[in-house]
Amino acid sequence: MTIKVPATSANLGPGFDTLGLALSLKNRSIIKPSRITSIQVRGEGSKNPKLCVDNIFVKIFYEHFYRLTNSKEQFRFQFENEIPISRGLGSSSAVIVGAIGSAYMIAKQPFTHSEILALALKYEPHPDNITPACVGGFTTALTQKDKVRFLKTNIPDSLRAVVVVPDHAISTAYSRLSLPKKYTQKEVIFNLSRSSMLTAAFFSHRWEALREASKDKLHQNIRMRGFPILFDVQQTAFKEGALMSTLSGSGSSFFNMCYKDDVKRLSKKLSSKFPHFKIFELSFDDRGLEKITD
Amino acid sequence: MTIKVPATSANLGPGFDTLGLALSLKNRSIIKPSRITSIQVRGEGSKNPKLCVDNIFVKIFYEHFYRLTNSKEQFRFQFENEIPISRGLGSSSAVIVGAIGSAYMIAKQPFTHSEILALALKYEPHPDNITPACVGGFTTALTQKDKVRFLKTNIPDSLRAVVVVPDHAISTAYSRLSLPKKYTQKEVIFNLSRSSMLTAAFFSHRWEALREASKDKLHQNIRMRGFPILFDVQQTAFKEGALMSTLSGSGSSFFNMCYKDDVKRLSKKLSSKFPHFKIFELSFDDRGLEKITD
Repeated sequence: MTIKVPATSANLGPGFDTLGLALSLKNRSIIKPSRITSIQVRGEGSKNPKLCVDNIFVKIFYEHFYRLTNSKEQFRFQFENEIPISRGLGSSSAVIVGAIGSAYMIAKQPFTHSEILALALKYEPHPDNITPACVGGFTTALTQKDKVRFLKTNIPDSLRAVVVVPDHAISTAYSRLSLPKKYTQKEVIFNLSRSSMLTAAFFSHRWEALREASKDKLHQNIRMRGFPILFDVQQTAFKEGALMSTLSGSGSSFFNMCYKDDVKRLSKKLSSKFPHFKIFELSFDDRGLEKITD
Repeated sequence: MTIKVPATSANLGPGFDTLGLALSLKNRSIIKPSRITSIQVRGEGSKNPKLCVDNIFVKIFYEHFYRLTNSKEQFRFQFENEIPISRGLGSSSAVIVGAIGSAYMIAKQPFTHSEILALALKYEPHPDNITPACVGGFTTALTQKDKVRFLKTNIPDSLRAVVVVPDHAISTAYSRLSLPKKYTQKEVIFNLSRSSMLTAAFFSHRWEALREASKDKLHQNIRMRGFPILFDVQQTAFKEGALMSTLSGSGSSFFNMCYKDDVKRLSKKLSSKFPHFKIFELSFDDRGLEKITD
């Protein structure tokens, strides 16, 4: 069986631990019955031999497959990874959602998105990446007890993403620790109003609202200060027609959204100004976790 | 000329100073040229003789009418007020928006909603009531420098509001002062995710999401503690099928939303349990500030 899970960009400025969307970049996992477990990694992560021994996808897959089937079957895993690791593009969420989802599919057990997300929450306590990884589109998510609730809308084909992937990571844990413990009422209302408007803009296709609605006062600038060239990335993106330009998750990647007509100009400019960073021209994924072949 | 401005309910739980909606309750103002200024108040406020002398609508109207026309014309003002005063139903916002809007209309000056809102912001620094008062519907609003930006969606006729209006006020200023100066990251993320999901629910008609999405951790319970019977109002509303049940603005009114089919049951129950409070069965207003007759 082959499944795919998309890359995701979360927070989207003001929507701290809340908003996210799925990109056309994806991890494919080919899983076949086998006498013994074997792991092969292509693409992202292929140069890290540890991933062939101590592989989180495989661990989570077996945990759920054995729980569902009570069997001791083994599998051969072939990973074709497009999602850069530790760059704020949801590679962990893709692994978690892909492993749980494929365990259900191979065990031939029915499942809902809500079930997958509730299980995924045990490995990744924030719902903002796992939700679009699982269901695709633009999502607003929350945790209620041990469950994820979400609402989703698709992103039309008239829009594109230009994702800038720096040559090194920001640690998520470090990045979260550097944030203030408390926020003022003014900062909070700033983000509440932007996050709500960003949501409204995606649900009603009012793209001209994104620039103001994607501003943040809670986390983004603090995180960017650890990697100040990202301010140049953002400034360049806005100058070249980006509708919004936000740190992807806790970084280090930057998510830029623009009209289809502007994507070449924007990606060309970013490539020439930041030649040491990878630039991806992407569309959006409306399907999330998906079985591609049996 | 006769204009009308609707009552509004703001905050809606998590959307502190951000979210609001317009109700079918309204203030009508009949304004006619006259040799001398005279003021007549019917309905809400009619028992307060001060409103016939020191009337904020009239003050703001003349301020803008004279600015726009450079004339010294005078008018006879007849107010037919349905919006309860100082109960968190946007009576001040209705006065401000109505006064500025009617000044433009009588001066025969073209105007946009954005212009009215920018002017209204000088009298009322929060955009969450003035925005739906001006444009109707459900709105998410923010202030950017001295301007209001908003996105709006209409509320379908399959829904109704049951508004509970207590027999006395909570002071907005006092109510705001009682709130904490700072909030934890956890509280902030709780509200960000609910406010965003509440917005998504209104824009995509996913009413079943409202109950969780209308929860708040920043202001509502603190304000309700000053008037604890409101917890009973909320509990009763949820028991009788309310989709959401939130403090209206800073109170003292409570806003309950339900399906049309449930409105009689809900309002009957609330009337019988809280006989000293006024109960309004309302629909939603999608038009905001409006000229009714020339």
